[in-house]
Amino acid sequence: ERGNTPHPLEGLSGTVERLMTEAFGILSPQDTVASALDHIVRTDPSITITYIYVTDEDEKLLGVVAMRDLLLASPGQTLEQIMTHDPFAFTPDVEMPEAVNAALLQRHRLYPVTDEEGTLLGLVYGWRLFEYVATEISAQAGSMVGVDKEERITTPILESFRMRHPWLQINLLTAFAAAFVVGMFEDTIARIVVLAVFLPVLAGQSGNTGCQALAITLRSMTLGELANISVSRVLRKEIILGAMNGFFVGLVAALAMWIYAGISGTENSAILALVVLVAMVGACIGSGIFGVLVPVTLKRFGADPAMASSIFLTTFTDILGMGLMLFLATSLLM
Amino acid sequence: ERGNTPHPLEGLSGTVERLMTEAFGILSPQDTVASALDHIVRTDPSITITYIYVTDEDEKLLGVVAMRDLLLASPGQTLEQIMTHDPFAFTPDVEMPEAVNAALLQRHRLYPVTDEEGTLLGLVYGWRLFEYVATEISAQAGSMVGVDKEERITTPILESFRMRHPWLQINLLTAFAAAFVVGMFEDTIARIVVLAVFLPVLAGQSGNTGCQALAITLRSMTLGELANISVSRVLRKEIILGAMNGFFVGLVAALAMWIYAGISGTENSAILALVVLVAMVGACIGSGIFGVLVPVTLKRFGADPAMASSIFLTTFTDILGMGLMLFLATSLLM
Repeated sequence: ERGNTPHPLEGLSGTVERLMTEAFGILSPQDTVASALDHIVRTDPSITITYIYVTDEDEKLLGVVAMRDLLLASPGQTLEQIMTHDPFAFTPDVEMPEAVNAALLQRHRLYPVTDEEGTLLGLVYGWRLFEYVATEISAQAGSMVGVDKEERITTPILESFRMRHPWLQINLLTAFAAAFVVGMFEDTIARIVVLAVFLPVLAGQSGNTGCQALAITLRSMTLGELANISVSRVLRKEIILGAMNGFFVGLVAALAMWIYAGISGTENSAILALVVLVAMVGACIGSGIFGVLVPVTLKRFGADPAMASSIFLTTFTDILGMGLMLFLATSLLM
Repeated sequence: ERGNTPHPLEGLSGTVERLMTEAFGILSPQDTVASALDHIVRTDPSITITYIYVTDEDEKLLGVVAMRDLLLASPGQTLEQIMTHDPFAFTPDVEMPEAVNAALLQRHRLYPVTDEEGTLLGLVYGWRLFEYVATEISAQAGSMVGVDKEERITTPILESFRMRHPWLQINLLTAFAAAFVVGMFEDTIARIVVLAVFLPVLAGQSGNTGCQALAITLRSMTLGELANISVSRVLRKEIILGAMNGFFVGLVAALAMWIYAGISGTENSAILALVVLVAMVGACIGSGIFGVLVPVTLKRFGADPAMASSIFLTTFTDILGMGLMLFLATSLLM
């Protein structure tokens, strides 16, 4: 039971055409049930025929006959008499997520692929569609941080280094951007050192809030759900969620700042607490927005929407979270 | 063509038993080919029989007859004469990743499930195994940052809030741990403010290096590859990779520190550059170790290895990256 089988879980993407196998089990409408059974018996045993595809002389798909239909019929009947007319078929340009959703409903072992005129082009095995989903999504968590689709635990060290290192250098460049923003507020930090202590808190929270939005957006893109929902509706949801999450997390963080600044003898501890709260709400709203826009933008530019998305996202959220806190503190207290 | 179908892509985990459907197409070895064909024809058309399972009076699975075998045989032959003996079967306690790997090799539409004595307990559809992989892995990127397996883009806002917010509060607590470590070096930061500027660089690099190791470890655990490889071998690989990545990224970061400290008139810019290099190497080695140990430990405690793994990991990497730089600077320069 196999088609032209590539390496299991090999990277796949695009449309149904990529998974297409040469069609087999093709007969004409005038063929009899007896000759169909004979055809099945004579076919190479490595190919399991589950359906007979009935085509006319122009290879146009007229109908499908399942094994069960053959057994129910009498040997002299023609396939035209017993076939299911206008069977379900993919066109080769159907996008994978759409095909997978169709396969989840139909659950056939094989699907015919036809062009716009109904000409039979090939077959697609149902399991290959499911394998596609598994492959695409298995790559996602890694792609987000610059790990190649093909890397496994068994990949040789130098090969892993070659694949991962460039993304770390890119991550370094983006970290410099965040460092540059922090550097703009050196004087503020020198005077109010507790701000340096809260830098990882702001960066961590906005980063994680953004990564939550990113994960949901990527999951929905892969499962083909984003096709039916406008980006602006998703954005609105993540903005509201960011505000809610930022407010309640910000309250706790503000309390911590108020206590910490008080203990360490820093002036204006109440204003610093307010700065933390406002910065957290702003940063979490912005993180929600970036979490949606980063994969959507990557896809619009024709790139894999997961590719290094976490690296790009955390640059934005680092700058936003730390920058907002330092900017507010500078504006109010310097 | 369906078994007892749950919601598509619903969360599944555990062993083959969870995906098991009641067996059908069961006949005895004395039954004839003619009666088997008759049985197939009389079965509810909503169930497609692909294989006949031949069992003895104790329901022990003796063999399997494929549709093609029936067509090749003469009507009077018994199933015993034409069946494939000792067919491939799962036991109900087979772990999912193992079952999926088997299914990738066998590519059958249905698999019998038998107990240790060979008694036929039920059937498992091949597509449900592939669906399982897709479901499990699709949850991963989200689980890492505290997004529920079930959350979709269409989940109502309050529901999303309820599911995501607790993890953000936990993330906040862990961020406080990193802040506490930074706070221990307040005096150092107050005197050498450029260190504050490089905090996001160290945190960002060690975090991303750790997330790369985490993603590969999770991917291999889900695909069942970690079963055949010792954790210590994986650790050794990530330690070496961490050292290599840390060294080359650290060189660039050290150069940046040397230039930046020089421009900003900070003393000891060469020593600060060395501090950045050594801290980066140490932090990236540690991040590689944590990237492997976090999911392995979660699994050992019976938890989902992806669950909040990124939150736990970045706590370690934040503390390690920023703490190491501040500790080295304090030791050498204060």
